[in-house]
Amino acid sequence: MADNSRTEIADLGEFGLIDHVTRNIELQNASTVLGVGDDGAVIDHFGKQTVITTDLLVEGVHFDLMYTPLRHLGYKSVVVNLSDIYAMNATPTQIVIGLALSNRISLEAIDEFYEGVYAACSKYGVDLVGGDTTSSQKGLIISITAVGEVSPDMFVKRSTAKKGDLLCVSGDLGATYIGLLFLEREKKIYLESPGVQPDLEGESYVIGRLLKPEARKDIVEFLAEKEIMPTSMIDISDGLSSEILHLCKDSGLGCVLYEDKIPVADAMKTAAFKFEIDPTACALSGGEDYELLFTIPPSEHEKLVLNEEISVVGYMTEAQEGVNILTKGGSKRELTAQGWKHLRQ
Amino acid sequence: MADNSRTEIADLGEFGLIDHVTRNIELQNASTVLGVGDDGAVIDHFGKQTVITTDLLVEGVHFDLMYTPLRHLGYKSVVVNLSDIYAMNATPTQIVIGLALSNRISLEAIDEFYEGVYAACSKYGVDLVGGDTTSSQKGLIISITAVGEVSPDMFVKRSTAKKGDLLCVSGDLGATYIGLLFLEREKKIYLESPGVQPDLEGESYVIGRLLKPEARKDIVEFLAEKEIMPTSMIDISDGLSSEILHLCKDSGLGCVLYEDKIPVADAMKTAAFKFEIDPTACALSGGEDYELLFTIPPSEHEKLVLNEEISVVGYMTEAQEGVNILTKGGSKRELTAQGWKHLRQ
Repeated sequence: MADNSRTEIADLGEFGLIDHVTRNIELQNASTVLGVGDDGAVIDHFGKQTVITTDLLVEGVHFDLMYTPLRHLGYKSVVVNLSDIYAMNATPTQIVIGLALSNRISLEAIDEFYEGVYAACSKYGVDLVGGDTTSSQKGLIISITAVGEVSPDMFVKRSTAKKGDLLCVSGDLGATYIGLLFLEREKKIYLESPGVQPDLEGESYVIGRLLKPEARKDIVEFLAEKEIMPTSMIDISDGLSSEILHLCKDSGLGCVLYEDKIPVADAMKTAAFKFEIDPTACALSGGEDYELLFTIPPSEHEKLVLNEEISVVGYMTEAQEGVNILTKGGSKRELTAQGWKHLRQ
Repeated sequence: MADNSRTEIADLGEFGLIDHVTRNIELQNASTVLGVGDDGAVIDHFGKQTVITTDLLVEGVHFDLMYTPLRHLGYKSVVVNLSDIYAMNATPTQIVIGLALSNRISLEAIDEFYEGVYAACSKYGVDLVGGDTTSSQKGLIISITAVGEVSPDMFVKRSTAKKGDLLCVSGDLGATYIGLLFLEREKKIYLESPGVQPDLEGESYVIGRLLKPEARKDIVEFLAEKEIMPTSMIDISDGLSSEILHLCKDSGLGCVLYEDKIPVADAMKTAAFKFEIDPTACALSGGEDYELLFTIPPSEHEKLVLNEEISVVGYMTEAQEGVNILTKGGSKRELTAQGWKHLRQ
């Protein structure tokens, strides 16, 4: 296919590329003392504590460029990191990005990727302050480290839930996984019959959840506004089961999860039935929802009961009672993790 | 080849692997409030400013596992990041590591890599506080982000050199590149005749510089002790020419570099002659030396004249005088960057 607007990265060189993708940066945070362009960036949180988290995204493992627009990939790469910062009850303030590019990637493609990165930075009020750009022998590799700030000792760990605490979940779960199934199906059809147009009619919700996830800034802000200090918090990246098991193990507790309280969107349920998959299974094991899972003391319940974006899905118990799900049929089953096992792929 | 001690990463799973490689961490810094094991790490620099830098290292681009022991690779991956923190006149305190592993890498290999990582952490007094471990389709990918601290506004940029300042370099330059030439030569011989033993007799200095570089903590400490505040600083990762050009461009200045002042080790000179390469060319364009290039006001000269680890190699001029090297033969040439062009490989 002819492409008149392809510019090779090699024609710019590493420093030319960095200048190009950072030329329009406008810093948004007073904490950003020095941004892109030196050996390191300098941040001053003015007495607040610094929170840091990192993610590595590898083409073919974490994303498929065949159905992931680069703009969405840039956006998502930032958001998944910010989600970890919010899960600490902190506010993200800066990111640094490492990119390894194969020569298959043009400057125009990189521009699209950065459009998404800057869109996420703008939406969440974070500054891109540094990075590293290099070549890869195969595929696109994205490394993002996010920095946030939190008032001293206001961060929330995953190991500090208390017995009797209510288990809460933001938003709805499982849609991302169904979105992935749709795109994988259409990819397969396309590879077999390249002329066929993708049929994703009516599936914009689940596909949107996959391609353009959001981090739950609003939930962390709501908790602060209502002066609710969660006793523990974690973000849901590997599926609800896996995250509940982490939280229980690290807090030395068990829990009861009510199947009928697990929030699932109608659009996800309808879509799941098309694949003959149980919506609950998607919510438990699907992954990449980037919702927040947290615990609160029962006394705080009334403060959040009117927030439709938060569901109370269970409560914490002694460890010896185990980690259980109470099914819609009324039976009690042990919860097991069946999240995406990247390393077994 | 039979290998009785090979453990597959997949048998541990991602979380098992993380537990395994972080089981012996002992935090060294009061600033590390919360380390590995949550959505993010928490750092409190107690009023100091935070410095952050990141590097992405890709197998086949930045290192060759055929002649790079994993222990050395782990050590070097940390050190190259710390070098950037020192180049800001800051003290490194924490790192986070992202690793993407192909199934070719065993648990024993990862243990070796982390031995090197922890050796560097111990030597430089930094804490490993987080990371991300995932799979790669091909090769090993290492992402390291280092965090440091600096007293408010004591960081040193590369853009603030002044006309008349002296240009200084730590240690000696060019040896790393010669070390690489030796190992590439031996690799080629080995691939052609696998029975032949590598002949690296007498080349331990240049090979050591390649495989086990150090960051110049001692220089930053010396400058602090002598109360020398550099007017600008950058670490030498792409070769002296390239870094001088960065410093001049960003500071809006020119400079004169004296060829006969460029520090080169005798072992490097001897080795360079074996390859019929000019030692000066290695120092100017070799790269990966991880020495510091900095400028000081002439009035500070006497404070560092006795330090044998620091060489004054030139001085800063007006921009219109250009960036020049005064050769041993007495002629003046314009300095050009011929550093490793990763993106043209």
